[in-house]
Parts: sequence; structure tokens; C-alpha cells
Amino acid sequence: MISFENDYSRAAHPAVLDAIARINENLYPGYGMDPICERAKAKIREACALPEADIHFLVGGTQTNQVVIDAVTPPYAGVVAVESGHPNVHEAGAIEYSGHKVLTLPHHDGKMDAAELDEYCATFYADGNHDHMVFPGCVYVSMSTEYGTVYSKAELEAIADVAHRYDMPLFVDGARLGYGLTATGCDMTLPDLARIADVFYIGGTKVGAMFGEAVVFANRDARSAAPRHFLTEIKQHGALLAKGFLLGAQFDALFTDDLYFRIARNANVQADRIRAALRAKGYTLTFEAPTNQIFVTLDRPTIDRLERDVRLGFMEKADESHTVMRICTSWATTDEETDRLIALL
Amino acid sequence: MISFENDYSRAAHPAVLDAIARINENLYPGYGMDPICERAKAKIREACALPEADIHFLVGGTQTNQVVIDAVTPPYAGVVAVESGHPNVHEAGAIEYSGHKVLTLPHHDGKMDAAELDEYCATFYADGNHDHMVFPGCVYVSMSTEYGTVYSKAELEAIADVAHRYDMPLFVDGARLGYGLTATGCDMTLPDLARIADVFYIGGTKVGAMFGEAVVFANRDARSAAPRHFLTEIKQHGALLAKGFLLGAQFDALFTDDLYFRIARNANVQADRIRAALRAKGYTLTFEAPTNQIFVTLDRPTIDRLERDVRLGFMEKADESHTVMRICTSWATTDEETDRLIALL
Amino acid sequence: MISFENDYSRAAHPAVLDAIARINENLYPGYGMDPICERAKAKIREACALPEADIHFLVGGTQTNQVVIDAVTPPYAGVVAVESGHPNVHEAGAIEYSGHKVLTLPHHDGKMDAAELDEYCATFYADGNHDHMVFPGCVYVSMSTEYGTVYSKAELEAIADVAHRYDMPLFVDGARLGYGLTATGCDMTLPDLARIADVFYIGGTKVGAMFGEAVVFANRDARSAAPRHFLTEIKQHGALLAKGFLLGAQFDALFTDDLYFRIARNANVQADRIRAALRAKGYTLTFEAPTNQIFVTLDRPTIDRLERDVRLGFMEKADESHTVMRICTSWATTDEETDRLIALL
Amino acid sequence: MISFENDYSRAAHPAVLDAIARINENLYPGYGMDPICERAKAKIREACALPEADIHFLVGGTQTNQVVIDAVTPPYAGVVAVESGHPNVHEAGAIEYSGHKVLTLPHHDGKMDAAELDEYCATFYADGNHDHMVFPGCVYVSMSTEYGTVYSKAELEAIADVAHRYDMPLFVDGARLGYGLTATGCDMTLPDLARIADVFYIGGTKVGAMFGEAVVFANRDARSAAPRHFLTEIKQHGALLAKGFLLGAQFDALFTDDLYFRIARNANVQADRIRAALRAKGYTLTFEAPTNQIFVTLDRPTIDRLERDVRLGFMEKADESHTVMRICTSWATTDEETDRLIALL
Repeated sequence: MISFENDYSRAAHPAVLDAIARINENLYPGYGMDPICERAKAKIREACALPEADIHFLVGGTQTNQVVIDAVTPPYAGVVAVESGHPNVHEAGAIEYSGHKVLTLPHHDGKMDAAELDEYCATFYADGNHDHMVFPGCVYVSMSTEYGTVYSKAELEAIADVAHRYDMPLFVDGARLGYGLTATGCDMTLPDLARIADVFYIGGTKVGAMFGEAVVFANRDARSAAPRHFLTEIKQHGALLAKGFLLGAQFDALFTDDLYFRIARNANVQADRIRAALRAKGYTLTFEAPTNQIFVTLDRPTIDRLERDVRLGFMEKADESHTVMRICTSWATTDEETDRLIALL
Repeated sequence: MISFENDYSRAAHPAVLDAIARINENLYPGYGMDPICERAKAKIREACALPEADIHFLVGGTQTNQVVIDAVTPPYAGVVAVESGHPNVHEAGAIEYSGHKVLTLPHHDGKMDAAELDEYCATFYADGNHDHMVFPGCVYVSMSTEYGTVYSKAELEAIADVAHRYDMPLFVDGARLGYGLTATGCDMTLPDLARIADVFYIGGTKVGAMFGEAVVFANRDARSAAPRHFLTEIKQHGALLAKGFLLGAQFDALFTDDLYFRIARNANVQADRIRAALRAKGYTLTFEAPTNQIFVTLDRPTIDRLERDVRLGFMEKADESHTVMRICTSWATTDEETDRLIALL
Repeated sequence: MISFENDYSRAAHPAVLDAIARINENLYPGYGMDPICERAKAKIREACALPEADIHFLVGGTQTNQVVIDAVTPPYAGVVAVESGHPNVHEAGAIEYSGHKVLTLPHHDGKMDAAELDEYCATFYADGNHDHMVFPGCVYVSMSTEYGTVYSKAELEAIADVAHRYDMPLFVDGARLGYGLTATGCDMTLPDLARIADVFYIGGTKVGAMFGEAVVFANRDARSAAPRHFLTEIKQHGALLAKGFLLGAQFDALFTDDLYFRIARNANVQADRIRAALRAKGYTLTFEAPTNQIFVTLDRPTIDRLERDVRLGFMEKADESHTVMRICTSWATTDEETDRLIALL
Repeated sequence: MISFENDYSRAAHPAVLDAIARINENLYPGYGMDPICERAKAKIREACALPEADIHFLVGGTQTNQVVIDAVTPPYAGVVAVESGHPNVHEAGAIEYSGHKVLTLPHHDGKMDAAELDEYCATFYADGNHDHMVFPGCVYVSMSTEYGTVYSKAELEAIADVAHRYDMPLFVDGARLGYGLTATGCDMTLPDLARIADVFYIGGTKVGAMFGEAVVFANRDARSAAPRHFLTEIKQHGALLAKGFLLGAQFDALFTDDLYFRIARNANVQADRIRAALRAKGYTLTFEAPTNQIFVTLDRPTIDRLERDVRLGFMEKADESHTVMRICTSWATTDEETDRLIALL
């Protein structure tokens, strides 16, 4: 049995585990007030070309979305996301739990359209009743998206422009940032994204770490600065890890010798091979997406046949007889695993 | 200048003000623990044919939606409403503030469709990831709806059936219940509605009272019983009126000699006359609705002309050159006001 | 049977009811966007000598405490109050419901001590772990207090000084402001209080209105300005009254010809007479307080005897055989009622 | 420089790291739906002698307190804790953030007194205004406490009896459970505690794990059963770890061959040696406590001298010239470190 079920099913990249083993003789202060975190942050600042960035490490993606959105969205406002966005669908209401509505736009292969965002905001402010409604207070997008697609630099800049025109920060969920930025055809670098977004995170959980998300506040102006006493807000959400140095050690390893992006690229390489095979064999790709998530519309017999040998992810029913399934590679996927999958297709 | 802007622009029906003036010589205990509230509740129970009903008086509609939905929806769940539903659009995020997501279905002239509710729930529970999503935990509909339409008995029963099959209470927002139940063609009585819904409220603010909504828990089984310590939850939401006897006095007046429904009917009679005039003059009614809210699609010159003499409500832009406006009658609308409006059309 | 149970047991001062009856022929816009509210606000601004004040009308006291504290306290912070403070004891957790901790200081006959506030804050910021604790973010006091006592101008100024030194607004709950400011020996006027506090409210519910609290943001600097989109926050808390003009009309009446303070003074006059009688007859006053709430420690036989003819408020058990009871006068208490009570003592 | 600053400054026990390294070749399903979690849970159930226990793994202590308290406390209620309790002091308001008040009792060397709890509840329910107050809805204690003390079996049973009499679950925070149960003089075993508490957790973060707390619902009756859809509530709080198998692997290692208690005992052994040395040298122990946290009242010169060579924890100022400092041993403290510290005293 092989598994292409998701990208968080293996503990961690060996270099990450080694980094932790290596520090196990030492004692460190708690809550991220340690030199390893400082070193990791310095490397991330450099990788982002953001020397003033304010960086905080959190444990997981839903947690990060909840903490950051709650902290940067005004109390009278909600967060704008596409309907398929993770906080809108798959976070058990974590955003609403923190008091904010998720305001939704249609998605286009998982992506937000800047013009639609503009139209939404213009309509909102033109409505004479808007004081009785939820203000758009923050823009959330993810890179790569729920459907594996990526934003071009121009697309993200356009969204940021609209967000800023309506006085909103742009928050980029980078749970799969590594996969997004190393995708074939992606025209954005990490410094590009760091220049465009006000706050974003570099996902570790799905790209080589045991766990961990590095939240980066660009800190170039008031809008992109970390909220006052952000550490206290993290704690208040139950999200402050006691042994913060474990997060530092992991990101230190991932941002040494470009490990993060090197292993991210592997997932895309394997996915590209699988996509080519699917196309060659006449399968229907549900979305055109260049990253590690492949959505494919399958009929029941094909699913039954495949699932005898490979674990896939369920996405949603397409129609009575077809289902969208997800084939997900990761930093850890081997050539052999990909070969076996292709042979089974 | 006449006004058809909304149904809450006059202080109160004279009988309501008289009722308060009459009790002003007496002193009453606070927080609704007084004999006037008891008397009003008894009358409402009788009008509902619900001798066991548990009744609580609140001040306003958004407040009531927030308090009731929060109290009857499990913590891991959201409330299902149509997209146009008041809590989803015009309550400034009061539901999300209390921690619950509003799960939306399409609306059909403002109404929920039982089959779509069923499909939504079936899809939810069939999704292997549903533990990571927001459970549907309560069904919210309004009678009449945001667009002035009404549910038939069969429609509401079908929604209740689906709600109960998925272990949800059905909550009916009756901010305009008087207008809904007295509409031409409505086949439901108050006892019918009281038999179908698990909890609902009888709106006073828009039907003759200064303020006040009477929340009725049918209390026929566990699902329709008031939550434990509901009074404490009301207080916790800042929604407990110190002088509860003011609410009792108003509802006592409204439920004496059928005043509530008599004055509600007036709004529909006036609206029917306006609708007939609009049709006769070739106007485009945006919705077919039999209650006191008339939505009409107008061009700019017509709006400009009308607004010289009459205050209307803005609804939304229909297209570049047309706008949906609302003409709203109320319990207080006089024949003369209606005549003047018709003459202006 | 006479009642000295509380100060919110009569509907309203006749002038207030008249004011509402007088406007019942007219139609007004909703949500406080009407000329009556404007007129009432102008009168309040003048009475406060705060021409720039930003004023909002809410319905009740707990609601006002919840909305204002939530709006002016940073998300990582709590509100500092004395242990006996209303939000800490008698609001069913409304402050915590909105996400903020009530940080408590000891009370001195219901009052906060500026030096203890200073010590609390100094200790907090000196604690190396304070980022893991709840920041003091707002100071709450009431005037008069839960025990009927009043702050002197110097005392309140000292509290404001400390609050400002630690970057906190001072919020004064004035549910009984009329009784506080007209008490014998009180050296503060409304303009004094308006100059010292950053935000406060003028309680109507307990001083002549049917309901209503006028929240005054002094608006003299950033700290005392109303939060952005405060109306939306009010709505979000379910606290925006549809017929806001009812609030305007009541406060317009109360701030015409000094009615508010004239009727407030009556309560203190009656209470002073009762206090004199109690002292003359050898009763034990629990607190030395000059306002309309008299706390007296009684033994069981006395309570039983009194309660045959007069309704009193229960406060708390003092010891095995004694109980603290409250005798509460109001704007509506008559000389005859006071005479009858004194005769019974 | 040696450190006795806290018990979470080393990454993890080698056996824990080995366990993770060993599973790194395999792929596992996410969110704790894996066989390693199942195995760990089976071992914990056996160690607790609770074959029906419902076990959930969370990441950290504040998070666990927030999630569990929010899930088991009714919406109209708060959690009762001693004033020095962690959720009341050092969780940045995480409990209030989730909407619940922390109701406090005095502490006795960090412990709750059952009689005082009883008195608190009796007084609450005897108060005629208790519907306007926060109901006591859950009892929180920790074992060991903030001051390193432990409950005897009789003390904990007495607290459970009172809690149950007032319809509250007893929740035991076991962040330092290992240190509490292996302390000299502790008369409770894990099965004892599991029989008395309704829900508790076994702290991993401070006892050998990298992170992780095992929440155990005793599941012997309705009161001790896990709330419905508890996994969804965990997710909603942002507390569901994607790679749940990491938690399973750590607890599997800790509950193999009694590792958890064996290493916990080491901390107490080292602490006992330090305590003996302190007493021998005439130091003032602030509390009599038998676990890994030693509180000692020191003057400034002594602190300055010690801090040249050893990192201690700051607790609080005792008076002008003295400070309470914490000496904290852990599962990892070596004989050599203890020797060095003793030599420095």
C-alpha cells in the first residue's frame, strides 16, 4: 500500500529531526525567547529580503489562521476569502469562534479575483446600510490554494492594491508556500511575496517540519506591523508553544542551504510526472494546477481499483457516478512511489 | 413629505402607550418577574395554543436572533439560513460575534427550500472530513422573509421535518410575524406555526410596540424546551431589560382583543392597494410578496421624482440604470398616506 | 405594602412618557439617525460642557458596560474594577462573554483606591512574566458605587491619573450618576466628571427614564474618542435599538430644565430622611453613603416585622443572625412613602 | 552556567526522540486517526485502570485548559479555581477569551479547600440574585499545584464530592501530574486520580515529551464523558495537530515500561536533595512542597550571587528586600547539576 493521501503524513525531514536531536543536550528558555529562534528568524528575514520583519512561530495552520486573522482584523470587521478558502470550509468555524465573519467571494480554480474583491468592497461601501453589516477588514488568500493553483505576481499585486485601497491588510496563508513558489511557471519569489503581502506564513507542517508555521509581519508600515502584544494574543488563543526552541530548530534547519525550497520542489517534480501520466492515459484533471495537489475526476470502478493499492484523498462528489479525488505528493515522495502510482493508473 | 421607509418609524400604537401610562402609578419587581409579564405570557400561550410554552421577552430583533441562536446551537455547530437572511447580512456579525458560523443556502424570493436543506445536510454528513467543518446545528427562517414573502404551512413543515431529521431545532424569526400570518393567501395560523417551530418569536417592534420581541419555546420536547438558565444567558448577552414589566405591558396590550393581528392586517391591506396601483401603472415588482414590504425595480428618474415627496427604502442596485427600492407599510399607515402615495406613482 | 426594593420599579417620570406620547404622530428614521436624538445630544453636550463629545444611546446598564468595555479595552487586556463592581458580580459574566477578564482590586466601601490601582499596575509591569498575563487595559469605576458611595473629585482625578499613566482609559459607569452627583457632600459636577473621565454614561433607567443610558465619549484626545465604527460594534452586540428616537425623546426630556438632576436629588433627600431616622432609632448602617441606596444590618425579627409592610432588597448575610438589607429610594419616592417607612422602623 | 529555571527547557527524553525517529519511514493518517495513537491510548487506559476512558491528545497546557474548560463548562457558567491557579493568572486570559469567567477561591499553599468550595456554592445558590451572576459550572484544580504542593486522596475526593453535589465535573490539570504522583508522601496513584476526577490530563510537555498533553475523560457517566464532537471543538480552537501521530508516538514511549513515572521521580529525588541542602543551610522555604518546584525566599545579595552561576525562576517580591525565587528540577536534571547547585547555595 502506498499513500498519496496528503502532505503531512510523515514525521519530518531527517535534517529536521537531526537538528532537534543535536540540541537535546542543552537547556533553553521557554516560549521562543532562545537563540535558536533568533537564528532561524534571521535566516528567514534574509530569505524574505525583509530585514525588519517581525517573525513569530506557531504550531499549525488553522491555529495560525485563527490567531493572525483575529489579531489583524478590526473587531467590527470580517475577513474576505474565497468560498473554497480553508478558513471558510475546513477549520470547524475557528474564525467565527474568534468573533469574525468570513466574507466570501467566488473562487476561480481556488483563487480570488482582484476585480471581484474591488466590486465587493465598492458595493459594500455604497450600501447605505453598511454600518449594519460586517465590514471587510482583512483579505485572506492562500499560496498555493486549496486546489493547488498559484497566484502570479501580477494577480497578487492587484489583490494587494485593492486591499490597501480599502484599508485592509493582505494576509497570505502559506501552509503550502514552498510548493507554490517552486511550481513550474510560478513567477514569484519569496522576496516578491514578502514585498506584496502585509503578513504571511511559511508553512512547515506540510514542507518538511514535524509542525510549525513561521508568521512573517513585513513590518514596513503600520498596516504590516505585528499587533501590539502579539505574543500575549498568541498565548490567549492557547497557541504559544512552551518549548519554542523546537520551532526555531526546525525552521533553522529548513532555512539552511535552501532546504525548504529544495524539498518543496521535489513534491512538484513528482506531481508533474503524475500529471503527465494522467494526461497521457486520458484522465480528466479537475483543475489545471502546477503544485503538489492533483485533483482528478474519477469514476467509481477506477477509484475502487486504485484504492486497493494506494491511499488517495476524497475531495467531493462530481456527479452521480464521478468523484473528485486528490493525489497529493510531498517533500518526501520518492521516485519509486511515483513510479508505482503511475504504473497503477 | 410622507414616509414608506420602514415599519419601525412610529413610537407605538396608542393602546400600547396607554397601557404603559396606566401602570405608571405602580411599582413592579424587575427583570420580568412581575404579574404583568405573567398575564401577557398567559395570553400569548393561549393565542399560540401552547399551554406549556416557555416565554421570554427581549428588546430587539438582532438581539433576539443572537441570544436564541447562541443558546440553542451546539458549540461545534452553526446556524443554517438563506443567504439573504437577516443574521447573514444585516446584523453586523452578531451571530459570529457569539461564536457561530452562518451556513448559507440559496434563497428563493427570500425563502429556504426544504429539499436544498436536506441536500446540504446529507452532503455534510457524507463528507469524510465533516468533523473538520461546521456542523449544521440550528435552522433559521423568518416569517415573513426579508423580501416580504411567506411560507406555506406545507413548506414550513417540510423544513421542520428535515431539521428534526438532522437533530436541529427550527427557529422562526417573527420580527414581522404579524404581517406574515395576516397576508392574503397565507394558510398558516399562529397555532399552526407554534406547532411546527421549536422556538420562534412574535415581533413587537415592527407591529405596534415601542420595542419588544416575545420569544416562545414550544416546550413540547427536549428540542423545543428553553435552554437551562436561559435568563442568565440573556443577561450575559446584555439583553435583560431592567424594567421587564414594560415588555409585559406592551404584549399584554397587543394580545388583548386580537390587537396585534388587527393592526398587522392593516399594513397588508395598505400594501395590497399599493401593489394593485403599481401593477396597474406598469411598474415592475421585484418579488411576488403579499406582506407589508413591496420591492419594486425603478429607474433613476422615477426614483428622483418620487423621493421629492416620499421617503422610500434603498434595497440594492439592479443594474446600471435601475435600483430596487422598498415601499414599506406598517400597522400605522393610514388610508390617506396610501392615497397620497398612489397619486404620486 | 410599600416598596423600597430598587430604583427601577416605576415605568418613567410623567414628563418622559409625555415626551413619547407627543412624538407619536410623527415618523422618524431608525437607529438614532433622527433629529430628536440630535437635540438630546446637544443638550447633554452642553450639560457636560463637552462641545466635542461623541454620544451614543444604549438601552441598559449591563449592555452598556459590555459594549463599552469591549470596545475600549485592547484584545490582549482586561478591565480593572473593584471586587464589588457590577461587571464583576452581577452581570452574569457579560464582560468575560465578550472575551475580557475583570481584574479586581479590593474595594473600600465600594470604591477603588488610586494608590492600589497604581500598585497593581506597577507590580504587573514589573513581573517578568507579564506577557503571559492579562494586561490592565481599562479602568472601570461607578458613580455612585454598588454601595451607594461617591468619589470626590480628587479621588477620581487620582484614579484617572494612574489610568492614563498606564495608557488606560477611565470608564465611569453612571447608571446612578444622577444620585451620585446630587448627593450631599459630593464635590463634583457633571462637567467635572466629564473632564476627568474618558468615557462615561448618564444612566436613564434608574433616574426617570423607561430605559436608556447615554454613553459620552469625551473626545478630547485619542484615548477618549469613540472607537471606529462604534455603531457597528453596538449592532454586533445586539444592542442597537431600532427606534432610537425613543431614547432621544427620553433624554431630551430629562435634560430639559434640569429634570434629570432635580428628580435625582429627590431620591437623596428621601434617603437622607430615612438615614436620619435609622440613626435616631439606633440601627446599624452598613456603609456611610450619601445616595439613594441605604445598606443596613438587621436581625431576623426586624426583617420579618418590616417585610410585612415594605419590600426591601436582600444584600447578603452578615453573620448567623444578621443580614444586610438595602433600602432604596428613587426619583419617584414620595414624602408619604418615606413617612410610612420611617413610621415602621 | 547551570539552569534550574523550569521543567520545559530540554527538548525531550531520548526515548521519545527515538520513538519519533523510528516512525519516520512510515506514512500515517492525520489528526490522530492512526494506530500509534490507538496504541498509546490503550496503554494510558491501562495505566489509569479506566478501560472505557476517552482520550484525546493536545499540544500544550494553556491550550488544554482552554479547550477542556470551554467544552465541559455550561455557557452560563464559569470555572472555579484557586486564585493562584494557572488559568487565573498565567494564561493571558485564555479562559475569558473562550467566554467563561474564572471564579476564584483562596488558595492554601496553592490548593483548593473542599469546605470553602462548598461554602462558595452554598452562598451562590442561596443568593436571591444568583440568576444574574456566573454559575459555578466546573471545578479546576492542578496536581501538582502552582506552588508544587499535592493533594491527598482524601482532599481530592472531598473536592469531587462537593463538585458533584453541585452538578459540576472535576477537572484536574496534570501538566505536572508525574511530579505530583511520584512525590514523597503522595498517597494517590494514577488509578486513584482517574477514579476521582471526571476529566484530567497527563502532562507530557514538562515530563519528557517535546510537547503533548493526554486528556482523559473517565467516561464512567454523563458527567465524565467527552462532550459530543469534541474533536470538532478541538479544531475550532485551533488545537488539532495535523500530525497527531507525533503525539501518539511520544505518549506510547512514555507509557512503555513506566518511563513517564520513572523519569518524573528523578525530578523529585533531585528536588528533595536540594530541599535538604537548603534547610541545612538555613534558607527559608516559602512553601512546604514535595515536588520538583522549590520556592525559596531570598535576599537580594543571595540572588545576585546565585545568578552568576545558575538560572532561577522569578516568582514574586516578598517584601522590600526579599524575593521568592523558584528552583525547578525536571526529569532531565542530573546528579551533577544538583551537586553543583548545592555547592553554590
